[in-house]
Amino acid sequence: MSLTPEQQAEIETLRASSAPTLRAVSAGMEAHLYKAYPVLDHGFIRVIDYMGDDAAICQAARVSYGKGTKSVQNDEGLIRYLMRHWHSTPFEMCEIKLHVKLPVFVARQWIRHRTANVNEYSARYSILDREFYIPAPEQLAAQSVVNNQGRGEALSGDEAARVLEYLKADSARAYDHYEAMISDEGQQGLARELARMNLPANIYTQWYWKVDLHNLLHFLRLRADAHAQYEIRVYADEICKVVADWVPAAYGAFEDYRMGGATLSGRALDVVKRMLKGEEVSQESSGMSKGEWREFQALLG
Amino acid sequence: MSLTPEQQAEIETLRASSAPTLRAVSAGMEAHLYKAYPVLDHGFIRVIDYMGDDAAICQAARVSYGKGTKSVQNDEGLIRYLMRHWHSTPFEMCEIKLHVKLPVFVARQWIRHRTANVNEYSARYSILDREFYIPAPEQLAAQSVVNNQGRGEALSGDEAARVLEYLKADSARAYDHYEAMISDEGQQGLARELARMNLPANIYTQWYWKVDLHNLLHFLRLRADAHAQYEIRVYADEICKVVADWVPAAYGAFEDYRMGGATLSGRALDVVKRMLKGEEVSQESSGMSKGEWREFQALLG
Amino acid sequence: MSLTPEQQAEIETLRASSAPTLRAVSAGMEAHLYKAYPVLDHGFIRVIDYMGDDAAICQAARVSYGKGTKSVQNDEGLIRYLMRHWHSTPFEMCEIKLHVKLPVFVARQWIRHRTANVNEYSARYSILDREFYIPAPEQLAAQSVVNNQGRGEALSGDEAARVLEYLKADSARAYDHYEAMISDEGQQGLARELARMNLPANIYTQWYWKVDLHNLLHFLRLRADAHAQYEIRVYADEICKVVADWVPAAYGAFEDYRMGGATLSGRALDVVKRMLKGEEVSQESSGMSKGEWREFQALLG
Amino acid sequence: MSLTPEQQAEIETLRASSAPTLRAVSAGMEAHLYKAYPVLDHGFIRVIDYMGDDAAICQAARVSYGKGTKSVQNDEGLIRYLMRHWHSTPFEMCEIKLHVKLPVFVARQWIRHRTANVNEYSARYSILDREFYIPAPEQLAAQSVVNNQGRGEALSGDEAARVLEYLKADSARAYDHYEAMISDEGQQGLARELARMNLPANIYTQWYWKVDLHNLLHFLRLRADAHAQYEIRVYADEICKVVADWVPAAYGAFEDYRMGGATLSGRALDVVKRMLKGEEVSQESSGMSKGEWREFQALLG
Repeated sequence: MSLTPEQQAEIETLRASSAPTLRAVSAGMEAHLYKAYPVLDHGFIRVIDYMGDDAAICQAARVSYGKGTKSVQNDEGLIRYLMRHWHSTPFEMCEIKLHVKLPVFVARQWIRHRTANVNEYSARYSILDREFYIPAPEQLAAQSVVNNQGRGEALSGDEAARVLEYLKADSARAYDHYEAMISDEGQQGLARELARMNLPANIYTQWYWKVDLHNLLHFLRLRADAHAQYEIRVYADEICKVVADWVPAAYGAFEDYRMGGATLSGRALDVVKRMLKGEEVSQESSGMSKGEWREFQALLG
Repeated sequence: MSLTPEQQAEIETLRASSAPTLRAVSAGMEAHLYKAYPVLDHGFIRVIDYMGDDAAICQAARVSYGKGTKSVQNDEGLIRYLMRHWHSTPFEMCEIKLHVKLPVFVARQWIRHRTANVNEYSARYSILDREFYIPAPEQLAAQSVVNNQGRGEALSGDEAARVLEYLKADSARAYDHYEAMISDEGQQGLARELARMNLPANIYTQWYWKVDLHNLLHFLRLRADAHAQYEIRVYADEICKVVADWVPAAYGAFEDYRMGGATLSGRALDVVKRMLKGEEVSQESSGMSKGEWREFQALLG
Repeated sequence: MSLTPEQQAEIETLRASSAPTLRAVSAGMEAHLYKAYPVLDHGFIRVIDYMGDDAAICQAARVSYGKGTKSVQNDEGLIRYLMRHWHSTPFEMCEIKLHVKLPVFVARQWIRHRTANVNEYSARYSILDREFYIPAPEQLAAQSVVNNQGRGEALSGDEAARVLEYLKADSARAYDHYEAMISDEGQQGLARELARMNLPANIYTQWYWKVDLHNLLHFLRLRADAHAQYEIRVYADEICKVVADWVPAAYGAFEDYRMGGATLSGRALDVVKRMLKGEEVSQESSGMSKGEWREFQALLG
Repeated sequence: MSLTPEQQAEIETLRASSAPTLRAVSAGMEAHLYKAYPVLDHGFIRVIDYMGDDAAICQAARVSYGKGTKSVQNDEGLIRYLMRHWHSTPFEMCEIKLHVKLPVFVARQWIRHRTANVNEYSARYSILDREFYIPAPEQLAAQSVVNNQGRGEALSGDEAARVLEYLKADSARAYDHYEAMISDEGQQGLARELARMNLPANIYTQWYWKVDLHNLLHFLRLRADAHAQYEIRVYADEICKVVADWVPAAYGAFEDYRMGGATLSGRALDVVKRMLKGEEVSQESSGMSKGEWREFQALLG
């Protein structure tokens, strides 16, 4: 991450000037506001704004006139109940706005979550910076030999060196030519909206991303999961830390019911009952496919 | 509107306790927070929370590190540009949360705007209050004789008196029976989720409604319009006042480009050009249907 | 359900005229098209149109040029995999359009599912029919004494008779007055958009409702569930039958992974593992609240 | 565009096998089904499926039991009325599913329209083809000197040649290295989800895109507009042709009220009225900014 001194000064200015508000304030969240938390080699997340806190979830669930909270303990019980029974609308009453800097190929995954508001830095109007994601050596993973969708061990030796060299050299050259094409010195200069097409998917972009808590938790469940691609998972992990301080009760319920929990199929549930009665169940007698059985074993392992 | 002393006390408590925040604060909006503004005979709107201000719109449009504002004047120019060119995403970066009390038949129109978050008071779990919308005499309008969709003059005399009597008596009786059915004194008591079906559409319900500024302005354009039903328009009008204080530049642009503006069809645009060249254009020579021509005349009248 | 002879004739006409198409055709669904399946005393569901079939889900998942299916068996395996791993976008590639007639209080629950397209019969412009939902005796349930949200036993004797009498008489009187108010015989006639407010929530309305398969299955999971209110559950049950014939593989996976399955929290999963190792676990040693423990026991019971 | 013989054969197979359906059939659309219409140098659009036709719009607007059409003329009048008064829900009752092949930088603009369903070819699991968008010489436009957002004249001479050489050589080299990195011959082979980051934004991707007619028309209004980037506009133009054959009345109304029409601000409307009364109005006396005045002049020019 490399903020210019000007950018750092702008952030400091915002953090220095507080004002009174009558709105719900989350002390845990105020401590995070505007700070840029580094992710990957040049990326970051920054909280720009937020609305609501744990009490606001209960206030909306009760459609109440006041804060909607009798005691912190009652609120936590209600929040756990709402999460357990998939009552999602009270969680939609909290909102967060993030400023994120991220490689384009990560942005392309991220944007598939449609229930959010986005303003992206426009390479049609503006000039992108010379910043590219180059994986750390331990993240230069081989294609998984088990399935089509995962990573295996990290590459090593000559192969790793060759890959790093390709990524660095190709990025640098693409950017050199991008600059050369848009330059208006001694030439007309190619339109920015065209020149950007030469830039590879590891270039960094940035956006403002605003989302309600329900949809954010759905995003985190999928993207902070072990099966998510590492490069988006590290963003999700960083956001998790912030959310844990913002709405501790909701985040605790999320950890228990979503991240730490599991969905059993009807077949799997039936097998669990048979096992609890002492029956030995095999893949053949389970009615599950091999893939399902393997996942089921991993779950109970 | 009839808030109980307890509800009023809860509101006062919230208004009395301010806390410092690093977030964007709209002074104009802070003055409105939690206050219940009366609408119709028992309804109200209250602002529960908000996110962002005029500067936040510009900050997102520029994907900037700081407040995103060089000067108030620059911000206003940018906001007008964004509004004129239908760049809607920066306006989505502001959010508002309202507590609204409204008749059920108004709620049924309102909910058709889907891009919003809603928590409604549940008549499945809770008991509704004995509060019904009874139109003021000047709002007891006759069916329009011009079209199927509007109101004519106010009813008068015996007819008006008879309608008022029906509305009042039927509401009261329906509520008496609702109470009698759910009572558990000397009987089992009908399930609330069933008993509610006896209540007419002029009973009041309430909800928390959260929406971003772009979608709110779209709602206001349709519902603060002269063609909207009076009973929802008065809610939209009241919300307009609040928005004008919250984001004055955005609201100003909205008034000019949306509320005060008009959409011309290609045919209408062509007729305007011909008229500006001095040609006399009639409905027949305009290429428009009679309905279109009538609306076109009204626009330029 | 009471279709007029004219309505029945219109339906027959549509069912009589088939035309060739190059699109994916689901034979199971064609048999249902336009037929009105009765629900409750006057309601129905009718399939008006559909897009896609099981093969279309696979075709989209593979972004393929042809039908996307090598064999029915492969398709079923892929569909089960997609469902198990919450890959929802391929299921969004199927769409259904229904015509539904339903009581207003059911419509108010239904509309909370926002990701759908709706055109409702407008009581602002048109006159509603004299049709009200009156529960069958066995559905006249008492309020549950266990929780706030459910039904107990059916009412009996005098209480049941009294409730039925209230519902019938109040509906009839409200409609009489509705008709009297809008009548233009010897008077001006109240605007329809006002007169409708006198009608209770058990009057029938109707709408066209269009939704993609992913969101439909989410709706069915919540509304065909045992905890859903009976009056909406019967609609969901009827839709389930149609979906089972439309996309048999997707519906089979839905039944196994969603309807017949269960979500375990992290705590519950931990308890299952301890029990499988032979440990006796009580509510106290489980770390669960009493409510969670009760639900957990019911699941494994 | 380059379909393999296998792909072409799959398409032919689908076009050869029609089946009877009871659903609404649009003859104009059937003629387009599955055909791949070329866009840019390697892209295309193909209609995979559709739901509804002009009559279906009217049927939903009337919530009718039959086809909802008395006569074609009545239907057209109703559709024009709905379009003029922004009644959007009946247009949502038609749906289209497209298979699109397009450069990644175009896909990134396209995906900002969130109300649609998308399945994209996954470079995380699969290997992308060696196909890149290289602009035709007349599209190698210079950056506009008038504003930040447009194109000027086409480049010429050495500059044009140099730009083409950069785009071609960088694409080819990036793909060579992509292949070299994922190869498992004599090495482990880099994970596909990582290797893709080396590919520039002019590489082609493809997706299934499904959208309702209302949202499609909104997309077309913005993307078939003269201010849209050429590379996405050519896709929108091609889709327009298909829509014109699918729902001719809706498309005609769209052309008149949206594409050929214009939105006047309150200030602009006021100026038009003054001009029609014979007044000479200048930018200074108009109350408009210079930018607004310029756009206003262009509109009436």
